[in-house]
Amino acid sequence: MTPPRLIAFGESLLRLATPTAEPIETTDTLDVHVGGAEGNVAVAAQRLGLDATWVSKLPATPVGEKVTTAYRTHDVDPAVVWDESDDARLGTYYLEAGAAPRGSQVIYDRAGSSITTATFEELPTAPFTEADAVHVSGITPALSATLVETTSEILSTAKDSGATTVFDVNYRSNLWDPESARETLTDLLPDVDVLFVAHRDAETVLDYDGDAETVAADLHADYDLDLVVVTTGEAGALAFDGERSAHQPVFETETVDAIGTGDAFVGGFLAAWLTDESIPVALEQAAATAALKRTIGGDAATIRPEMVESILDGDVEEISR
Amino acid sequence: MTPPRLIAFGESLLRLATPTAEPIETTDTLDVHVGGAEGNVAVAAQRLGLDATWVSKLPATPVGEKVTTAYRTHDVDPAVVWDESDDARLGTYYLEAGAAPRGSQVIYDRAGSSITTATFEELPTAPFTEADAVHVSGITPALSATLVETTSEILSTAKDSGATTVFDVNYRSNLWDPESARETLTDLLPDVDVLFVAHRDAETVLDYDGDAETVAADLHADYDLDLVVVTTGEAGALAFDGERSAHQPVFETETVDAIGTGDAFVGGFLAAWLTDESIPVALEQAAATAALKRTIGGDAATIRPEMVESILDGDVEEISR
Amino acid sequence: MTPPRLIAFGESLLRLATPTAEPIETTDTLDVHVGGAEGNVAVAAQRLGLDATWVSKLPATPVGEKVTTAYRTHDVDPAVVWDESDDARLGTYYLEAGAAPRGSQVIYDRAGSSITTATFEELPTAPFTEADAVHVSGITPALSATLVETTSEILSTAKDSGATTVFDVNYRSNLWDPESARETLTDLLPDVDVLFVAHRDAETVLDYDGDAETVAADLHADYDLDLVVVTTGEAGALAFDGERSAHQPVFETETVDAIGTGDAFVGGFLAAWLTDESIPVALEQAAATAALKRTIGGDAATIRPEMVESILDGDVEEISR
Amino acid sequence: MTPPRLIAFGESLLRLATPTAEPIETTDTLDVHVGGAEGNVAVAAQRLGLDATWVSKLPATPVGEKVTTAYRTHDVDPAVVWDESDDARLGTYYLEAGAAPRGSQVIYDRAGSSITTATFEELPTAPFTEADAVHVSGITPALSATLVETTSEILSTAKDSGATTVFDVNYRSNLWDPESARETLTDLLPDVDVLFVAHRDAETVLDYDGDAETVAADLHADYDLDLVVVTTGEAGALAFDGERSAHQPVFETETVDAIGTGDAFVGGFLAAWLTDESIPVALEQAAATAALKRTIGGDAATIRPEMVESILDGDVEEISR
Amino acid sequence: MTPPRLIAFGESLLRLATPTAEPIETTDTLDVHVGGAEGNVAVAAQRLGLDATWVSKLPATPVGEKVTTAYRTHDVDPAVVWDESDDARLGTYYLEAGAAPRGSQVIYDRAGSSITTATFEELPTAPFTEADAVHVSGITPALSATLVETTSEILSTAKDSGATTVFDVNYRSNLWDPESARETLTDLLPDVDVLFVAHRDAETVLDYDGDAETVAADLHADYDLDLVVVTTGEAGALAFDGERSAHQPVFETETVDAIGTGDAFVGGFLAAWLTDESIPVALEQAAATAALKRTIGGDAATIRPEMVESILDGDVEEISR
Amino acid sequence: MTPPRLIAFGESLLRLATPTAEPIETTDTLDVHVGGAEGNVAVAAQRLGLDATWVSKLPATPVGEKVTTAYRTHDVDPAVVWDESDDARLGTYYLEAGAAPRGSQVIYDRAGSSITTATFEELPTAPFTEADAVHVSGITPALSATLVETTSEILSTAKDSGATTVFDVNYRSNLWDPESARETLTDLLPDVDVLFVAHRDAETVLDYDGDAETVAADLHADYDLDLVVVTTGEAGALAFDGERSAHQPVFETETVDAIGTGDAFVGGFLAAWLTDESIPVALEQAAATAALKRTIGGDAATIRPEMVESILDGDVEEISR
Repeated sequence: MTPPRLIAFGESLLRLATPTAEPIETTDTLDVHVGGAEGNVAVAAQRLGLDATWVSKLPATPVGEKVTTAYRTHDVDPAVVWDESDDARLGTYYLEAGAAPRGSQVIYDRAGSSITTATFEELPTAPFTEADAVHVSGITPALSATLVETTSEILSTAKDSGATTVFDVNYRSNLWDPESARETLTDLLPDVDVLFVAHRDAETVLDYDGDAETVAADLHADYDLDLVVVTTGEAGALAFDGERSAHQPVFETETVDAIGTGDAFVGGFLAAWLTDESIPVALEQAAATAALKRTIGGDAATIRPEMVESILDGDVEEISR
Repeated sequence: MTPPRLIAFGESLLRLATPTAEPIETTDTLDVHVGGAEGNVAVAAQRLGLDATWVSKLPATPVGEKVTTAYRTHDVDPAVVWDESDDARLGTYYLEAGAAPRGSQVIYDRAGSSITTATFEELPTAPFTEADAVHVSGITPALSATLVETTSEILSTAKDSGATTVFDVNYRSNLWDPESARETLTDLLPDVDVLFVAHRDAETVLDYDGDAETVAADLHADYDLDLVVVTTGEAGALAFDGERSAHQPVFETETVDAIGTGDAFVGGFLAAWLTDESIPVALEQAAATAALKRTIGGDAATIRPEMVESILDGDVEEISR
Repeated sequence: MTPPRLIAFGESLLRLATPTAEPIETTDTLDVHVGGAEGNVAVAAQRLGLDATWVSKLPATPVGEKVTTAYRTHDVDPAVVWDESDDARLGTYYLEAGAAPRGSQVIYDRAGSSITTATFEELPTAPFTEADAVHVSGITPALSATLVETTSEILSTAKDSGATTVFDVNYRSNLWDPESARETLTDLLPDVDVLFVAHRDAETVLDYDGDAETVAADLHADYDLDLVVVTTGEAGALAFDGERSAHQPVFETETVDAIGTGDAFVGGFLAAWLTDESIPVALEQAAATAALKRTIGGDAATIRPEMVESILDGDVEEISR
Repeated sequence: MTPPRLIAFGESLLRLATPTAEPIETTDTLDVHVGGAEGNVAVAAQRLGLDATWVSKLPATPVGEKVTTAYRTHDVDPAVVWDESDDARLGTYYLEAGAAPRGSQVIYDRAGSSITTATFEELPTAPFTEADAVHVSGITPALSATLVETTSEILSTAKDSGATTVFDVNYRSNLWDPESARETLTDLLPDVDVLFVAHRDAETVLDYDGDAETVAADLHADYDLDLVVVTTGEAGALAFDGERSAHQPVFETETVDAIGTGDAFVGGFLAAWLTDESIPVALEQAAATAALKRTIGGDAATIRPEMVESILDGDVEEISR
Repeated sequence: MTPPRLIAFGESLLRLATPTAEPIETTDTLDVHVGGAEGNVAVAAQRLGLDATWVSKLPATPVGEKVTTAYRTHDVDPAVVWDESDDARLGTYYLEAGAAPRGSQVIYDRAGSSITTATFEELPTAPFTEADAVHVSGITPALSATLVETTSEILSTAKDSGATTVFDVNYRSNLWDPESARETLTDLLPDVDVLFVAHRDAETVLDYDGDAETVAADLHADYDLDLVVVTTGEAGALAFDGERSAHQPVFETETVDAIGTGDAFVGGFLAAWLTDESIPVALEQAAATAALKRTIGGDAATIRPEMVESILDGDVEEISR
Repeated sequence: MTPPRLIAFGESLLRLATPTAEPIETTDTLDVHVGGAEGNVAVAAQRLGLDATWVSKLPATPVGEKVTTAYRTHDVDPAVVWDESDDARLGTYYLEAGAAPRGSQVIYDRAGSSITTATFEELPTAPFTEADAVHVSGITPALSATLVETTSEILSTAKDSGATTVFDVNYRSNLWDPESARETLTDLLPDVDVLFVAHRDAETVLDYDGDAETVAADLHADYDLDLVVVTTGEAGALAFDGERSAHQPVFETETVDAIGTGDAFVGGFLAAWLTDESIPVALEQAAATAALKRTIGGDAATIRPEMVESILDGDVEEISR
């Protein structure tokens, strides 16, 4: 049986992280990972059974090639335009790992990265028209005016081709303000089938008040969505498909690396839901995938299906031997 | 005063462990330790005052020599037959370190290791006849038919020589099934004086029902044991000597490395009990040793006696200076 | 606006620490930090806005230069007498990192270090007469008879010059006994304006009974102090200035490295109080600085002011991006 | 233009290497790489422009998956039968890195690995019939009787399908003796088109005397080969196609890791020769690829085409910026 | 005696270097250093006795603060304008460490860094007017039009204040082409007193033909220089002051890190020459400093004066104890 | 056959070494080894077949225990007096690893270590009277007046018991001056049977002029020695037994760690010579052992006999597999 094909479009960055307990100021080594919201979704989905492709634009340098190598490691197929221009660059971010009550600190250095100039025309378009689902996040249109346009064309092309369009709001306050985000996202949402949104972002950015259930119902109605998933941090997630709502609590974890938790959630959900599992089953896999991500270093959920099964079966042993 | 002599016979393996948070699939370094149930017992017992010897069979290669070096580091005397055959090999296991709710994953690569061919005749026999106590575990007879025979001869020889025979059931479901285990162990138990068994294994493997106290009493009676110690995970341990039973709770720990906890418990117990401490005192030392093991990397309890004393005295300071 | 000038005099040592979970006996690498009670205070204070100088005596070797380099890293100005003698040495200490219930173990190798011969005359005296505040701790007079004399002259010179004199009792039982400490400290306290003392040390060493409030009031009265701060471990701290007392609880932390917590507390307090913040505000900053220190490796609090602000504002996010 | 397709069949192992200067006996970390003669050829060839697939049989465990992940990293397509049996295992080897005059020491632990049971029938056969070239080495038939048969069928199937069959003698004295090797290889050579052989192996194993030119000519004639490449260590390599012979000296290197040099040579040669470059050009690329391999850690040549070009152009700068 | 004051103005970057033998594509850690041509000169000069200040513009982030921390470590005083703008960034470069015949590969990501907007007006000007010497390199005006202007004003201001102006051509072909460089540098040279130039750059960029002696004499005459130093790689360096020329060969080294060799040369030269040592003495110290730099990791020459003395005295022992 | 028993008495220190290319000033990790001239001899001799014991005095702390653990790792038996005094300390030394032309720098911190108070009476005396050979070096009597006396008693006791006494002059200019050394050594030499001395030390310290052959003959005659071995750095070594002299050149090496070369030479020599090999054979083994030491990190020669054999047989392959 051929698995469903998922296409994810977005920016991935080189993450340069300090070792635990070492401030950026004094560290003399940095751990390197490749990460990006949509790529993270692709990795989780691929590892749980989908056939995932990651579409992007990268500098034509060994640093850019590091990104495609990273995705191939996860068996995600990279479909990439290579930026040969002189000032082609890969976005990076510094991560100073925290420990409570000191939060982890992210310092972006992503302005002017190659993807900010990516037009729909130069991208490999086949993936979008042959996909079962296409995923983008609200980070992408926040990066440049060009990418607003490109995102819009990807969503409409995908929808026209019969693919399910998936959108994760993923609001980042240091990339744009709520008003700009609202204006742009409001234009994109009519082409979206499945929406993931944090309860907080629904309020701050999209201006929806009320509890998760209310917000989900209102968004579903206003944008004629197939499915809305509202996440509320440690309070879990709620999905609404117009008829029924389902709620899923989080699995408690020992947190090794919190980055990418939300993306793992989306990837875990899609891997189940696109293979015709029920919404409650998909939500449960989403929560388990998110929990597993927190136990693994890096942005991507380097997991195996049996890890998810073990959590869902409730038979986790301290040592399995 | 000469300390009591403890002989432990069994397999030790090279443990190849991923750094925390790094899956086997992507790691590019592995931390190396030497471990094995009986060797771990010998280390803990030696460090707490016994004179311990570890008997085994190893490949005559630098990899095999790594094992004897490891035991000498702990001042445990290795008494080893060197396997000069072409296909001599050291068993290994891969350890993928977990973080809740992801359990640690052990992948064994131990089939056909040199010890599986070890006959009683080729082993250095002096240790068994000159020992105060001889320790084996249920892992050893699970490894090969030859080792069932060898284990049996060791136990009967030791008993005949007046040594106390100690046996830890240590059931491993990936080495054999409960029925095979029961059949073999039932044959061995008549030569055993002191039995350590997990409550769960007593039920699954040995077919004893009831609470820990009942199981201990029944085993004591059926096999004419001197002492039975039944461990029940976080619920602690119970010892029964035919007259009195004693219960010991676990000490809570920050867990750095859970492997070898049970072996440290046995080693800590024997170090006290063989030097004529009372059963409750031996159980308390066992629990403290097990707790300390969890705070130290590797299979072996690289501890100092004052660490145990500090826990037993209840005067642990965050920093001792 | 010129920040207040703080001078700290004391010994700093090379700290040689085992990696987590690795006993001293088996480790083959040691992490190196520079630390010392007064230097730690200077670092925290400088990072939170004061202009700090650290005065000491060091061996004229690359190992000694490592110490000044370390302080310059934190922008603390080192004012140092270089010991050119043949047996000049830097004190060191080994730190075996613990994990509950195994405490961290400190093994000092500091006897005969260069600072133990430091006389007031050979030290650069300008700092003491030009300072707004001068800080010493009870560790320094415990190191040698020479240093009792030097400490005494520093305090009286500073007081005569109009500087605020700050003293942290910091009793270390492996350097002297309570009686010797009491005798020496009693002689020094008349020249002290601001006293920091652990509740336990007030009782054991200074012979003051009662709850923190009583101890603070009694010390304030007996030594005509401007301010007394009594710390009671996890129960927090209490300050008394003769009129009002203020209490500050601790901030809970995930502890990466507990060493230097008390010094960070003092440094955080002074940075606020010497810039005319109120005592409650200074106590709160002290507690936040101490909490942050516990999340960072090494003796020194390698923090940024916004980390403190974030805790005081109560808006710590798991990931700030 | 579609690049030529190269299929390589063989065993890859987990290489567990000590850090420089650290003997196996005392090391507590091992660096992990994946390596195997045929896989190494595939990597070098893919990185220099071919479309390479690596065919093998692996244990269905995370350790086995580590191997496919490694090949995907190099963009080599793994086509693998997963061994689900209980005693499925991945071969490993320990590498104790040397420094002159101490040679690097390899200790194999590869007996009974999953590939030793691989039959032609269970392998994915499409690769062999759709390839432009199929590569195997003399290591594979040395591993088991089954693999002699499988290798034979692969070669004959490939030849029947019109693919160029490539064989590297790669004699390993610890796997078999010269007589057994000669007997087996003599049976396989009639299906070979292109033969790589070390001058020393030609003599010891295949019983051909004389200088490289004589050996090449005799082998060419006796087995009706298209091409023979005889390598003579630091004396370089000689190729003979029945008409002309070409000689290529080695490029001097600073050696970081000598393992895989010969495989990189073969991969570099095939990448050029299969895209219709002349034999001298292919030999030169082979030598450059081999030289580059020696400057990179691991068994595989993690190179970029411009590195080869830079050597061939003779314009290597100490720092390129 | 107050040491001469040297001011260096220029960009420093975060250098992100792969461990030896590990390509960028596969590395998962990067070693971090701070480096930049002028800062490197300041470090070498300060360590050999000058009082050096480094002037620059940096992003007001923990990443920017890492740079000032680095210079303070070397006791170089950082005088920095903090860039508070939203897109403030620190330039970085990736270094893939080579091994012959594979050269080290530098990949710059420095476009749009904060310093490219630095105007003379916003810089702290006191350093330039109070300096004994001011150093800039040809890299700075290559970075932006603004910096051409700023460099010009720095040189003329310094010259007007009576400081010696020092310029190192340091042509980088990936920043500009020879024609642009020539045009800009020709405008700057009239304000230069001491010129360092690679023989190759003198020809390619400045259009001067002939051997080192001829080039030096012609440059000296054309620009009314006090001193010209022409470096010719492994052939050493030649200095000409209008009257005499002096030649200095290189000291052979075991090269650990070649980056910063030229800057260490300039720093070593200035430290001697500005303290009134003769030109041959200064050249010899320059060559020794450059040689030492090659034995130390990072861009900066973390040396001690006695290391230089030991080379100049010719009494280097393998182990000094 | 029981191997000859060798006893070595002397100080071992904790060596704290910077990673390659990292100065002491900036390093934040140190590699830890245990080393000492006589212990190094014991290790090499034990590994090549003798039964070696190392006698010393150590602080009764985990740091002291690290030393005995280190020797047990090499299967050398530690016979140690534990110093329970308050100021008991282990000597240490810092090693800043060099790279030509920068020499490695040793900074000792060994004054007042526990061994400096070791009297003959408190040492375990059995080893000295039961040994076949007793080894001490000239470092030991340089450490304290007590140790001059102790060394003298050890040599005379050993000689009286019929053991061969072995002495390595090992002059260290930072411990004493040539005159003091000469006076002390002259008193000790009458009890010495076998003398190792560097040609340079024979001249500087013992005041013997002439070429190696002359010096050896003169020393042999003057002190009625059984054997004199004079080493002349890269020029090799010469042995003279009163009848014949034998010369041995050095084996060239890639040097990883030069410390302990001379001690490995002595250990390799004794392992052969004490088992009745001829002097030329013993010298050759000494040279091979010294060469191997240079390829291995740490002070001790962690070698295997087959490594020596491989060098002596002249069949070293780059990779042995």
